[in-house]
Amino acid sequence: MLKYFEYEQNSLTLSWADGRVTRLDVLWLQDHDPAGRHDNGQRLISVLDLDWQAGIRAVDRQGGSLVICLTNGRELTFTLEHLAAEQMTTIQDDRSWRGKTLWRGEAFTLPDVSWPDYTGHDDIRCRALAAVAESGLVLLRDVPCEPGQVLEVIHTFGYVRETNYGRLFDVKTVVSPSNLAFSNLGLGPHTDNPYRDPVPGVQLLHCLSNEVDGGENLLVDGFQAAARLQAEHPEAFELLTRIRLPYRFIDEKADLRSRVPFIETDGAGNVLKVRYNNRSIAPFMLPFEEQRAFYQAYRLWAETLSAPDLAFTCRLEPGDCLIFDNTRIMHARTAFTDGGRRHLQGAYSDLDGLYSTLYRLGASAC
Amino acid sequence: MLKYFEYEQNSLTLSWADGRVTRLDVLWLQDHDPAGRHDNGQRLISVLDLDWQAGIRAVDRQGGSLVICLTNGRELTFTLEHLAAEQMTTIQDDRSWRGKTLWRGEAFTLPDVSWPDYTGHDDIRCRALAAVAESGLVLLRDVPCEPGQVLEVIHTFGYVRETNYGRLFDVKTVVSPSNLAFSNLGLGPHTDNPYRDPVPGVQLLHCLSNEVDGGENLLVDGFQAAARLQAEHPEAFELLTRIRLPYRFIDEKADLRSRVPFIETDGAGNVLKVRYNNRSIAPFMLPFEEQRAFYQAYRLWAETLSAPDLAFTCRLEPGDCLIFDNTRIMHARTAFTDGGRRHLQGAYSDLDGLYSTLYRLGASAC
Repeated sequence: MLKYFEYEQNSLTLSWADGRVTRLDVLWLQDHDPAGRHDNGQRLISVLDLDWQAGIRAVDRQGGSLVICLTNGRELTFTLEHLAAEQMTTIQDDRSWRGKTLWRGEAFTLPDVSWPDYTGHDDIRCRALAAVAESGLVLLRDVPCEPGQVLEVIHTFGYVRETNYGRLFDVKTVVSPSNLAFSNLGLGPHTDNPYRDPVPGVQLLHCLSNEVDGGENLLVDGFQAAARLQAEHPEAFELLTRIRLPYRFIDEKADLRSRVPFIETDGAGNVLKVRYNNRSIAPFMLPFEEQRAFYQAYRLWAETLSAPDLAFTCRLEPGDCLIFDNTRIMHARTAFTDGGRRHLQGAYSDLDGLYSTLYRLGASAC
Repeated sequence: MLKYFEYEQNSLTLSWADGRVTRLDVLWLQDHDPAGRHDNGQRLISVLDLDWQAGIRAVDRQGGSLVICLTNGRELTFTLEHLAAEQMTTIQDDRSWRGKTLWRGEAFTLPDVSWPDYTGHDDIRCRALAAVAESGLVLLRDVPCEPGQVLEVIHTFGYVRETNYGRLFDVKTVVSPSNLAFSNLGLGPHTDNPYRDPVPGVQLLHCLSNEVDGGENLLVDGFQAAARLQAEHPEAFELLTRIRLPYRFIDEKADLRSRVPFIETDGAGNVLKVRYNNRSIAPFMLPFEEQRAFYQAYRLWAETLSAPDLAFTCRLEPGDCLIFDNTRIMHARTAFTDGGRRHLQGAYSDLDGLYSTLYRLGASAC
């Protein structure tokens, strides 16, 4: 509800019944003119079409609208509904840690849903995808143990990010692997493919069989770890947002290289993405004076990621498919014996597709 | 050639014959120990395995190697060749504008190569991909005018980024399009899909027919434009690296949202990515005090991108396939008459695949 408005030559100030005040430059008003948008919502005008000489001559309330007359003779008509919503419609920042529920493993319940429910009910699929947005992951149970099924899972929310590993990859023990993920060694907490830019935002791991001793999965909320690092060691946090390390993966077919920080922020201090993968950091050089401070910060990051209270442990059983945000969630696995079979299929996708599906399903209906 | 070395408890200093000096912390030495890497190049040790108490007890030159004895009894052996290369092997920053050849359209020759040469000769393919790395684009000629062929082009260097537009999309005139690209309107200089995060790094446009009047393509080096903006209006440049705008694309199937700056830098001031797309900037709100300064900077960016000397004009003819870096190159097209046929097929891919192929082909052989 608009309580009152006032204007000067270059600005309009709206005072709402709830106490909010919105002040808008005449340039903002021209740029946001609803008449300057195509039916599909795309803006037809460019910033070069704005009239920098135009001021506000008069503002007239007409029913549910405000009509703004400019000194150049143009009229801009905004519905009050539109203007009231404007503040809120500034698109939510859905990728940074703001608004997310950060968790610690020792007090965490893994969100899960069964495959028949997920595929049969939009509201359940919506809730599952919302869990990825909020907590960074969801477990689908009873996914058919068919090779390739992991791609069917992706098709429910987005698109497959094909890579040099293929559209999907098998995680089985391999002799002399080009990637240690395909050995039976334990792997510390890590994000996948930091050497890829853009990094795949979504990872899936679908368990087809798991008869080995060990091979458990540890999951860590990297946003929670970053928050802890920032609280306890702000100077280390700052350093790790600033220093970009080179990563590399090389085999016969591929030579992938990137240069990214451990912790990526939006400039206003909100964390957007975290990374950790000691295996694929390439040789790097820093000025001597920075080397020790960097290693101190790097160690604190590794220690924080290894904090026992942060880790959530689970064991993937046949039919389980874990979907997680690879820009946030660290995963690890314990070593396992060569004895039985352990076969996971993994694949990558991107967050924009997942979020798009989530929005289309209507997050409010979840 | 190593001239001499000296060491203290916590550091080793190498003086090379060419005058370079490399100073390495003992932590760096432990972390870069060649024995700590798997045969595949992946690091086996974690930062948590480093010994913070260990100092350097002795350094011994043995033939082509340096053997570094630590106070904890460990020995690290580096070949001199390895150490000499270390400075250089810090992976090149291949995405930022450093090392690129920035161009202005009025003095630019579009790198081009014929499809038979490209597919038949690795060195020619390498040169073509190197042109994308260096100048941001390459034109393939004589690509068969078959629908879907654009995907075959992608398969020569990377992977298709499938989106809600499909694996490929047709650019033809459509009545009441959900995206203005599919109309016959002119389009100002823009990058594609700023509402997608990650943004597709590579775009392809393959011309199958072009019988209309108009419909010419304009190409602008966005890195050059950013360099000019920085030189002429540093405060505007700075503002545009800092303010993240919301972008959105919405239709019946998709609701894509992002929040990104016009100019993305690496924190050291090197430009990594540029964007411009007036059509898909969503309604946004800034503090009143910032609105006018922002619009000023935004206008300067738009004006710079429209500078006549920056634009390179070309007309895609049937068989032409343009490959360009969508994080750098702006494209535009003039309006065209409804009369004849104009049919392009476009598709997206990612830069990491393209660079990987370029490296594997051996950039030096180009």
